[in-house]
Amino acid sequence: MPDFSIGVDLGGTNLRIAAVNREGQLLEKVTLEANAARGPDLVIDDMCNAIHRVNAQYRRDGKFLGAGIGIPGIIDLDAGMVRKSANLPTFSGYPVRAEIERRLGARVYLDNDANFAALGEKWMGAGRSVANMAILTLGTGIGGGIVLNEKIFHGMNGMAGEFGHVPIDWDGPPCGCGSHGCAEQYASATAVMRLAREAIAGGRAPALAKAAVSGAEFNAAAVFKLSMAGDEQAQEIYRKFGRALGFLLAGLLNSLNLDMFVIGGGVSSAWDAFAPAMFEELRTRSLVYAATDPARGGTGKMTIIAKAELGGDAGLYGAARVPLVMLGG
Amino acid sequence: MPDFSIGVDLGGTNLRIAAVNREGQLLEKVTLEANAARGPDLVIDDMCNAIHRVNAQYRRDGKFLGAGIGIPGIIDLDAGMVRKSANLPTFSGYPVRAEIERRLGARVYLDNDANFAALGEKWMGAGRSVANMAILTLGTGIGGGIVLNEKIFHGMNGMAGEFGHVPIDWDGPPCGCGSHGCAEQYASATAVMRLAREAIAGGRAPALAKAAVSGAEFNAAAVFKLSMAGDEQAQEIYRKFGRALGFLLAGLLNSLNLDMFVIGGGVSSAWDAFAPAMFEELRTRSLVYAATDPARGGTGKMTIIAKAELGGDAGLYGAARVPLVMLGG
Repeated sequence: MPDFSIGVDLGGTNLRIAAVNREGQLLEKVTLEANAARGPDLVIDDMCNAIHRVNAQYRRDGKFLGAGIGIPGIIDLDAGMVRKSANLPTFSGYPVRAEIERRLGARVYLDNDANFAALGEKWMGAGRSVANMAILTLGTGIGGGIVLNEKIFHGMNGMAGEFGHVPIDWDGPPCGCGSHGCAEQYASATAVMRLAREAIAGGRAPALAKAAVSGAEFNAAAVFKLSMAGDEQAQEIYRKFGRALGFLLAGLLNSLNLDMFVIGGGVSSAWDAFAPAMFEELRTRSLVYAATDPARGGTGKMTIIAKAELGGDAGLYGAARVPLVMLGG
Repeated sequence: MPDFSIGVDLGGTNLRIAAVNREGQLLEKVTLEANAARGPDLVIDDMCNAIHRVNAQYRRDGKFLGAGIGIPGIIDLDAGMVRKSANLPTFSGYPVRAEIERRLGARVYLDNDANFAALGEKWMGAGRSVANMAILTLGTGIGGGIVLNEKIFHGMNGMAGEFGHVPIDWDGPPCGCGSHGCAEQYASATAVMRLAREAIAGGRAPALAKAAVSGAEFNAAAVFKLSMAGDEQAQEIYRKFGRALGFLLAGLLNSLNLDMFVIGGGVSSAWDAFAPAMFEELRTRSLVYAATDPARGGTGKMTIIAKAELGGDAGLYGAARVPLVMLGG
């Protein structure tokens, strides 16, 4: 009897729902508009209706074990509530878990979306073969999650994995968190666009300047394309990006000596542009990485820095995984 | 029957041995000269003879369960060998664990000294009441260890906790690890002395200059004394130290959201001189610390930054703890 669970990825814009079975097969995926500004009641209505429809199909063959709901922001795990979410401000203080449990009549696990992405990559993605890993999701900012012994490591307040706010520069640009010089100011889509704007303003980036006014969307992917086409200024932007990411990873690797760091999120598709500088910085900065490098007399059993494999679905796999483990017996 | 175990702290200079019982009582402590340059055979002879003498006393009342041996450096946990130790270079490649086990006829656990210090503070020191914590030992460099769920977290190669080599500055002083700008170049005894020398060379630190030629030992403790006596230059040195430590802790706290970070090692006795700047930097730089601060609307359940309580004995407690847990039933 192929039991299954539901993974949900709830963002400010999209609401995505997947049914996943115990073997990690994604049985079905539904994408809805979240329209989060409507407030939690209506969003959760849509979510639960869609889950009911999906379940109706698969309940003939197997048992529905429960759902995992991934939300960007700070989650109060004990209360099953959103403490703070920039993308879902109306959800703060609303009893999210209790409401969804009531409507589904099933167990629900609420967690941060990056934590679920970490667990998803661990289960069915790049981290399949390792025990301890972390993910860094490169998007507007940098999200993060840690999986130790196949379980999400939450820390004291459920806030472990805020890698985007590791300081990497004393006097860097201000960050939304109140600090400045945070890693996500250097290795995110926002950082790429800041560097591009600076290069254009400096009058030394004709190709970037042209792309910015071309009418086509000017974003991190556009800068990546220019970089791969050989534009030196675009390449320099992703070299800086890669160095910053390597600097961040060196600190994390020296601190944690994990089996693997997975690099995910939308901007990870620019891997070819930033990875060489990232690895160079990491090799220079991490004695743990260096000490285990077979090319330098190490054992060869060294931390792997891998590109994520599940793309935007990582969080769905991870969210669906928790009920399977917790309730699957 | 009060069973007991032996904890050993083996450094380049001192060899310290303690008998500890299950309740965490330190029954006896022996300090010998290590004379590590003699090579491992003679050092281990002395160690095992001393352990035999201690055991003879306590064996009447209880069972000797085994020994933990803490060594500064990179330990191969599987092999029970020292991979690399700046203070004990002659130990590299020597079968340390097997030799001690043979001579004692008991189980022996080899580990990094800072890992044992973390476990010791967890068991009987500052971390008694928490589940997940890390220690930063401030000495010549910065050592570190992580304890999760009451067990040492080793990482992939036993090298987790190298907090001293987290990079905190892009263009800082070179570090023995091959990188530059590592945290221990800013918050260690070595860093205090570098800053003191720089201040003296700049001609703007008369009190430090006087102390340096006074005949009394001029070290981090001497700079601390001047700081507490009101010397502005000495105070500035420890303010820089505190800011660097706060910067490092902010990254670790945002990454791990542990229950507690314990600050130990010889230079932690300068706490009063560096702690104010450390906390100021941490509050500015860590959104996790800020988000949980009751003074800023947080829950009040926030990471504790605590001074170590066991001093130089932390490693002895931790080393003795492992046989008690692993073999004590």
